[in-house]
Amino acid sequence: MNLLTVGTVAFDDIETPHGKAEMAIGGAATYISLAAAHFTDKVLLVSVIGDDFPQDTLDHLKGQGVDLDGLQVKEGEKSFFWAGRYHDNMNSRDTLVTDLNVLADFDPVLPESYKDADYVMLGNLTPAVQMRVIEQLDKAPKLIGLDTMNFWMDNTLDSLLDVLKKIDVLMINDEEARQLSGEYSLVKAAKVIHEMGPSTLIVKKGEHGALLFKDNEIFFAPALPLNEVTDPTGAGDTFAGGFMGYLAMTDDTSFENMKRAIVYGSAMASFCVEKFSIERLVGLEKEDIRDRIRQFVQLVNFDAKL
Amino acid sequence: MNLLTVGTVAFDDIETPHGKAEMAIGGAATYISLAAAHFTDKVLLVSVIGDDFPQDTLDHLKGQGVDLDGLQVKEGEKSFFWAGRYHDNMNSRDTLVTDLNVLADFDPVLPESYKDADYVMLGNLTPAVQMRVIEQLDKAPKLIGLDTMNFWMDNTLDSLLDVLKKIDVLMINDEEARQLSGEYSLVKAAKVIHEMGPSTLIVKKGEHGALLFKDNEIFFAPALPLNEVTDPTGAGDTFAGGFMGYLAMTDDTSFENMKRAIVYGSAMASFCVEKFSIERLVGLEKEDIRDRIRQFVQLVNFDAKL
Repeated sequence: MNLLTVGTVAFDDIETPHGKAEMAIGGAATYISLAAAHFTDKVLLVSVIGDDFPQDTLDHLKGQGVDLDGLQVKEGEKSFFWAGRYHDNMNSRDTLVTDLNVLADFDPVLPESYKDADYVMLGNLTPAVQMRVIEQLDKAPKLIGLDTMNFWMDNTLDSLLDVLKKIDVLMINDEEARQLSGEYSLVKAAKVIHEMGPSTLIVKKGEHGALLFKDNEIFFAPALPLNEVTDPTGAGDTFAGGFMGYLAMTDDTSFENMKRAIVYGSAMASFCVEKFSIERLVGLEKEDIRDRIRQFVQLVNFDAKL
Repeated sequence: MNLLTVGTVAFDDIETPHGKAEMAIGGAATYISLAAAHFTDKVLLVSVIGDDFPQDTLDHLKGQGVDLDGLQVKEGEKSFFWAGRYHDNMNSRDTLVTDLNVLADFDPVLPESYKDADYVMLGNLTPAVQMRVIEQLDKAPKLIGLDTMNFWMDNTLDSLLDVLKKIDVLMINDEEARQLSGEYSLVKAAKVIHEMGPSTLIVKKGEHGALLFKDNEIFFAPALPLNEVTDPTGAGDTFAGGFMGYLAMTDDTSFENMKRAIVYGSAMASFCVEKFSIERLVGLEKEDIRDRIRQFVQLVNFDAKL
């Protein structure tokens, strides 16, 4: 099955306690596509860039099976740019620069061949842009996932609530789940958010793992404890790409399969943070991913002897 | 097998967003003993109280199989008292009052019958007092667990390092593991702490679960997502009591069995936080505990289909 994704394709300046990267390849849709392409036969990318984006990265995406027909290239304009600095604990960061550039008036246009997409992942963007993508679909996809952030809750809550009615899986962090629901307990938050539309909630907790809430069932996947986290940028998008890519590959949206998809998403994210930018996702082999899944099994596996 | 434990037996004033408790029964050794008594045939308690401590609580402890021969009662003096207020997120708290009272000059004295204890849990206390307990043992126990906190790292690091050389399992939170080791990565922190003495490190992360590091193996147990956390006081001690009690009951210190012990400890802690003070631990049945273990299995169980 194919996976349509919309999100930024961008440049990042990143500073962490482990080093710096300047004009590094970034963007939600970049990470989502690269992670998903390890699973699905076809990723349909919707985004916008300027004429400053490197051709070799576009070639790499194409080589991975990412369809770029939905990628608008604006001549004489610059790609979206973000600069940030991580604190010592890597769990929080300051945004230093946000240059919207081509993103300022981004109007996503779906090529005809995208309009019957099987699976859809709406990366973190203005809710109105996410809605524009949904509106252009000819038929209801099997599953729509959506990422968002507190900024849209603060500033465009009504249009966020509109788009939530249309989607199946909401992926946000614990702070955002609490803000959106007004509930501190994540169990209660999941119930409130379920009423807003999404049948499934994934709470991303970074180094503390991820929780999956569907109906009255809960599943927890830890993050893999790592020797070194070099750069957390893109980890959430890589998680989403692995999760959605695995669902698209297996074409199975049952709770049992979503559990596996979460573990695959966590495995992809654990690679992402080991190096700057998309470096670690490039050239990753199927066997690397399987090895890491085995580590996840080891990490949580116990015989309760009940 | 029996379990010797030393720690406070105390009164707490507690304020959380869900209510208040005044002069509630508290203390590390109280929680450790009550949790462990669900598993071991005998808990040997070492502590000190004033003549103000309620007899019915002492009777309840005795009824659960807790030996009070090592509990000193100081006539005309007051028991240790702590007052604290939890923040909205329940993950942090302010200490409002600490009245050491009988704890100020506590010199633990082990009755003869305690000196060949099989398992030992040293609750959070001055490292010098923890060492005094170890020194009085006639033979090396099968396993010694120890809880401590950043206060002792700041103020009595040398004597803490001395006692760490004598113990097997160190149980601290993630912030404390980072402070003690000087490493941010918990994987690296575990290696540094291993060099200090303890063969096993348990990193308690509250609502984010617990990590077990032994040799080069890692195990992760989540905390159970709860509808409501009423009062986190004593959760870490209850976890330690469940962990050590399970090890003492099964008399098996292998990594595989420690994994089960961590899950039992987490299950006991999940009960503890549901009500104020020791309320939820009193009258808990074997079947309640088994039910909760089943929930833990459900929470992390997945078929990787590799």
